[in-house]
Amino acid sequence: MMEHILENRRIALIAGHFERPPHRLNNIHEADAELVDLGDASALYLAATADALVEEVESGLYSDPALIGWMLAMANFSDLAAVGADPLGLLVAISSSPAQDEAYLARLAGGIAGACRTLHTYVLGGDTNEGGHLSLAGCALGLVPKDDVITRVGARPGDRIYLTGPAGLGSVYAFLRLSGRENDAGDSFYKPVARVTEGRLIRKFAACAMDTSDGLIHTLDTLMRLNRCQFVIEDNWERILHPLAGEVCRAQGIPPWVALAAVHGEFEVCFTIRPDREDALLSAAEAEGWSPVLIGRVDEGQVVSICKGEKHVPLDTTLIRNLAAAAGADPQAYIGKLLEIAREAGL
Amino acid sequence: MMEHILENRRIALIAGHFERPPHRLNNIHEADAELVDLGDASALYLAATADALVEEVESGLYSDPALIGWMLAMANFSDLAAVGADPLGLLVAISSSPAQDEAYLARLAGGIAGACRTLHTYVLGGDTNEGGHLSLAGCALGLVPKDDVITRVGARPGDRIYLTGPAGLGSVYAFLRLSGRENDAGDSFYKPVARVTEGRLIRKFAACAMDTSDGLIHTLDTLMRLNRCQFVIEDNWERILHPLAGEVCRAQGIPPWVALAAVHGEFEVCFTIRPDREDALLSAAEAEGWSPVLIGRVDEGQVVSICKGEKHVPLDTTLIRNLAAAAGADPQAYIGKLLEIAREAGL
Repeated sequence: MMEHILENRRIALIAGHFERPPHRLNNIHEADAELVDLGDASALYLAATADALVEEVESGLYSDPALIGWMLAMANFSDLAAVGADPLGLLVAISSSPAQDEAYLARLAGGIAGACRTLHTYVLGGDTNEGGHLSLAGCALGLVPKDDVITRVGARPGDRIYLTGPAGLGSVYAFLRLSGRENDAGDSFYKPVARVTEGRLIRKFAACAMDTSDGLIHTLDTLMRLNRCQFVIEDNWERILHPLAGEVCRAQGIPPWVALAAVHGEFEVCFTIRPDREDALLSAAEAEGWSPVLIGRVDEGQVVSICKGEKHVPLDTTLIRNLAAAAGADPQAYIGKLLEIAREAGL
Repeated sequence: MMEHILENRRIALIAGHFERPPHRLNNIHEADAELVDLGDASALYLAATADALVEEVESGLYSDPALIGWMLAMANFSDLAAVGADPLGLLVAISSSPAQDEAYLARLAGGIAGACRTLHTYVLGGDTNEGGHLSLAGCALGLVPKDDVITRVGARPGDRIYLTGPAGLGSVYAFLRLSGRENDAGDSFYKPVARVTEGRLIRKFAACAMDTSDGLIHTLDTLMRLNRCQFVIEDNWERILHPLAGEVCRAQGIPPWVALAAVHGEFEVCFTIRPDREDALLSAAEAEGWSPVLIGRVDEGQVVSICKGEKHVPLDTTLIRNLAAAAGADPQAYIGKLLEIAREAGL
């Protein structure tokens, strides 16, 4: 199942050479962050994740160094949020070329520092180099109680599907940036905060979780493959889509779900929960002033579908995901193909 | 003191934006790996380090992808060895361009896997991307007992200075590669193994430690600055220099200590020890079939010097280290300048 996705083939090409660590809880693909057993004496797993910013910088999707630094940190911490970990901090590997002057590096570092401050965590250390190109990688570390850890695996039919917040901002940001279109809000609306606080609460209730860093449909596709269930999304776009994303979709004539299918996400966490845990989750969330967004339910089957009235319209998520492999090279063609899929599916 | 080194100014430019993590034992520069307190309930520190391979790949110093993968892993694990940590494993961020085909990536991954196997540890996870350039970063994680942890700080006059093994192979490898000179041994002699096993033993005895990833003189310079002591090296090159490095120095007319001054090292660990702990260390090492190499002693003062008979010849290690900033751009000029310093010092 997982090998139908082109991206996973590239991962397998490299990861196939590596032995499975006996002290790692998860198999490959099964968690946003690696969960490392610290031994019987510890009630905690170490959560560790590495994430480099490559396509987003090279394509010009992120150009302000402050946003680049912010996203480097948040993309890594978002993986911790999805396993319910409390952050210990971030390591960064920053290689710069002469094209990045001191002011650029200061803004980059300021973006990283701001993201850490927002999440009440720290840069633990890192490595700086000078080379021919800008190159950025991060590694976030955290701890999660063994009894409360969540992975991408654990959904079953009957579960309800939630998001930590409305989705679609990531792809709308990418659409506006890469198509050169203007928006009244500028592009400052895109400054996602990793859902670390919510992850800490989710870990006590959720059956499985994964962040939406590559867009919601990509997340649902992965959860569907790993859990061998049907993930049914209600066509209640008012609730699911961020208002700004909904507005852009209306103005540009883009079907709402396409804003969830593009490969640039917004770092919400998508999770499923057994129906009998739902009330407890919602009460706990309310006590913290947070409203999880119900987006659908898990059913028998093995597909991602959209529920229109009585009908389930299946999405060809293999096709949608594999389109993304070429998204950076030609964003216009990518958007065009997504719209074509929408037309053909009658959505 | 630390800010006299150009490299440290670049680090300060970025790291100056970051708040000091209250749960990190070491200050910046004070340890090869960051030492993170896991809380009062844990008798262990988490050791974490990030290291990207940039200059070594761009300059052509490493070109075989198997060696590149090996060095990516070993450079990171060497930082764990220097704080005495037991490795938990490695995270890798690998961005490749179309110039790296499947065979290249397979050799790269094989090199990483081989290094981990050699150290009885694992790749825990990572991130792969496609972009315009090859870009490689690693993050090694380990655990070290709070009671036994070693940092770069703790030397005092009277300490003896040791190496885990003879030095000089790293710079001799770089000299032969970058000057296009041939050597009977080819260049397969350079495949360093991080001194993780020895680090586990050193942590019970040493006062301070640091690896020689940037060459021995760079290591001694940093230890001298952090500990505000004189580091005196005996001119017993037969013992200190690796035989192959000694041979190349003789053949090329290079003063032996210059092979320790160049910026490409060999991933030994340099450490100091109180004289009254020396016998216990040597017995424990012998029981494991390992012979630490005595290279000198710590004295009053604040300089790195070479002991010739009764005379201490001080080295201008600030000058030597700052030369390195331009080493990658013009290796021939770099070697020429090191030889000039040797002539002027009469060494």
